[in-house]
Amino acid sequence: MKAAIIKDKNTPISIEQIADPGSSSGEVVLDVNYAGLNHRDVWISKGQYAGIQYPMVVGSDLTGTYLGKKVIVNPAFNWGSKSGYPSSQFEILGLPRYGSLAEKVKVPISSIHPLPDFLTPEEGAALPLAGLTAYRALVSRGQAVAGEKLLITGIGGGVALFVMQFALAIGMEVYVSSSDDHKIQRAISLGAKAGINYRNEDWEKEFIKNFGGIDLVVDGAAGDGFSKLVKICNPGARIVVYGGTGGVISQLIPQQIFWKQISILGSTMGSEEDFKNMMNLVLKHQIHPVIDQVFPFSEIQEAFRRMSDGKQFGKIIMEIAS
Amino acid sequence: MKAAIIKDKNTPISIEQIADPGSSSGEVVLDVNYAGLNHRDVWISKGQYAGIQYPMVVGSDLTGTYLGKKVIVNPAFNWGSKSGYPSSQFEILGLPRYGSLAEKVKVPISSIHPLPDFLTPEEGAALPLAGLTAYRALVSRGQAVAGEKLLITGIGGGVALFVMQFALAIGMEVYVSSSDDHKIQRAISLGAKAGINYRNEDWEKEFIKNFGGIDLVVDGAAGDGFSKLVKICNPGARIVVYGGTGGVISQLIPQQIFWKQISILGSTMGSEEDFKNMMNLVLKHQIHPVIDQVFPFSEIQEAFRRMSDGKQFGKIIMEIAS
Repeated sequence: MKAAIIKDKNTPISIEQIADPGSSSGEVVLDVNYAGLNHRDVWISKGQYAGIQYPMVVGSDLTGTYLGKKVIVNPAFNWGSKSGYPSSQFEILGLPRYGSLAEKVKVPISSIHPLPDFLTPEEGAALPLAGLTAYRALVSRGQAVAGEKLLITGIGGGVALFVMQFALAIGMEVYVSSSDDHKIQRAISLGAKAGINYRNEDWEKEFIKNFGGIDLVVDGAAGDGFSKLVKICNPGARIVVYGGTGGVISQLIPQQIFWKQISILGSTMGSEEDFKNMMNLVLKHQIHPVIDQVFPFSEIQEAFRRMSDGKQFGKIIMEIAS
Repeated sequence: MKAAIIKDKNTPISIEQIADPGSSSGEVVLDVNYAGLNHRDVWISKGQYAGIQYPMVVGSDLTGTYLGKKVIVNPAFNWGSKSGYPSSQFEILGLPRYGSLAEKVKVPISSIHPLPDFLTPEEGAALPLAGLTAYRALVSRGQAVAGEKLLITGIGGGVALFVMQFALAIGMEVYVSSSDDHKIQRAISLGAKAGINYRNEDWEKEFIKNFGGIDLVVDGAAGDGFSKLVKICNPGARIVVYGGTGGVISQLIPQQIFWKQISILGSTMGSEEDFKNMMNLVLKHQIHPVIDQVFPFSEIQEAFRRMSDGKQFGKIIMEIAS
């Protein structure tokens, strides 16, 4: 089969011929139609995870065909029995197990879900990992409530956009931030109430002046800007952190955290229950994932570059074999 | 009546004759027998709270006499209807309202509770504010569970010691930290499993080597050492922050927070429900507060100095009129 191979750290991804996956007990081999990219794939290609063995086939998201039916896959395997955190056997499709950027992929039979009728196969490949991460961050950890005010930082990324779509479906008042005014305008056209460019110095003062305090923040950046998120929080607010692209957090004032009874909640991926609940929300509200661009499989390097540059608004999808 | 008066910021507290409090609707005047000190009182004397009007009578804790019966007072008034955070009318006895370091104090009638039979009046004056803060931090926010491993930082302070006593009653495995080995030994004699001196460089590595990871931390310091608390956390752990004597938090690594699904939870004071639940726990397990020293009222300056120096192990109590 053809597969997108990362031969070593920091070498360009390339499409090569490799052996088909073999069968094993409890696992099945799917034909991949579309695969979705995640930042995770780019970071693995740069060696930014522990214990990577090259060569590696990355990719956590797909729409595939199994016994003639279109299916999607929950890429988070073996979460285990505790809702609060994953077991030591937890893994994500695409590391260490070969992933979805290939013509065939082997997955546990229990991870397969039918592609909902109202989604295209491209949309199906956009949903699983980012949708799962967004759902756990917003609902399971963030305890999102209709009518509350939500700020989503870094709008445009896959997780951030699903957080927005899910929050609007739940009935929240959604605010977004970005360094790109164009992305803010697109989010507003999709239903966000307003947005703010975090490159403005003192954006947090401007935010409070214009929009008041915030009840829930979903943040994928952390970094130096994080302490400003605490400042715009209302009493009892929660800040869910699902990523750290901005680096270490500094200058957090503890008095702001305890006087306002703030909760800072780490979240990543999600459990089987999170996945089922996410699918139910998507079905109930007929939520269509936002797709940035569909690339032919041969343009995998261009697709990786687009994700690496952070230019996308929505999910980047590869057409493997439709 | 005699009252301990702070005449201005950074002037020594002194005992003076002032007018008795008058009566008003829904409020009653108690005769104060014993009053307990809190760090809050020292900070108010140093001007470290917003909106202090001098002269001021501080003090949040007391055992008093009302209609011939011994009573204690929940010093947290008007929490309001939300369990997650206090209302804008919330206040603590002893600022802006005159507090318990006086022969008489006026409080809402709804704040009065009978002194439990098994407690001495000195112990009753040690319990309310620190016990309430400890209960909310450990149970309401920290969701303490029997069998879990708990680390309490800065053992010896009033809140930290109540956290320890409540956690032992609940059935947790308790570890403590301090900069004072003598305080660690005293905590072990009261039931802590082990302790560690946080002045040791790399104490967190030593801790993990000797005791493994931690499920819950209750911390009153924050500051530079906070990031080490995240490092010793097990997956799914909670860190409750109720104070900030160590200053701003820096060098927090977001990946450690989200990969381990850590929760960092601000907590201070508590609701009426927290107070009732705290009293039930104290009654059920017949918990006697740890008292550092009982001073005569005339030695209020010495008592303030002892609290300011951080030498105490347990609560500092003033005998007003027994």
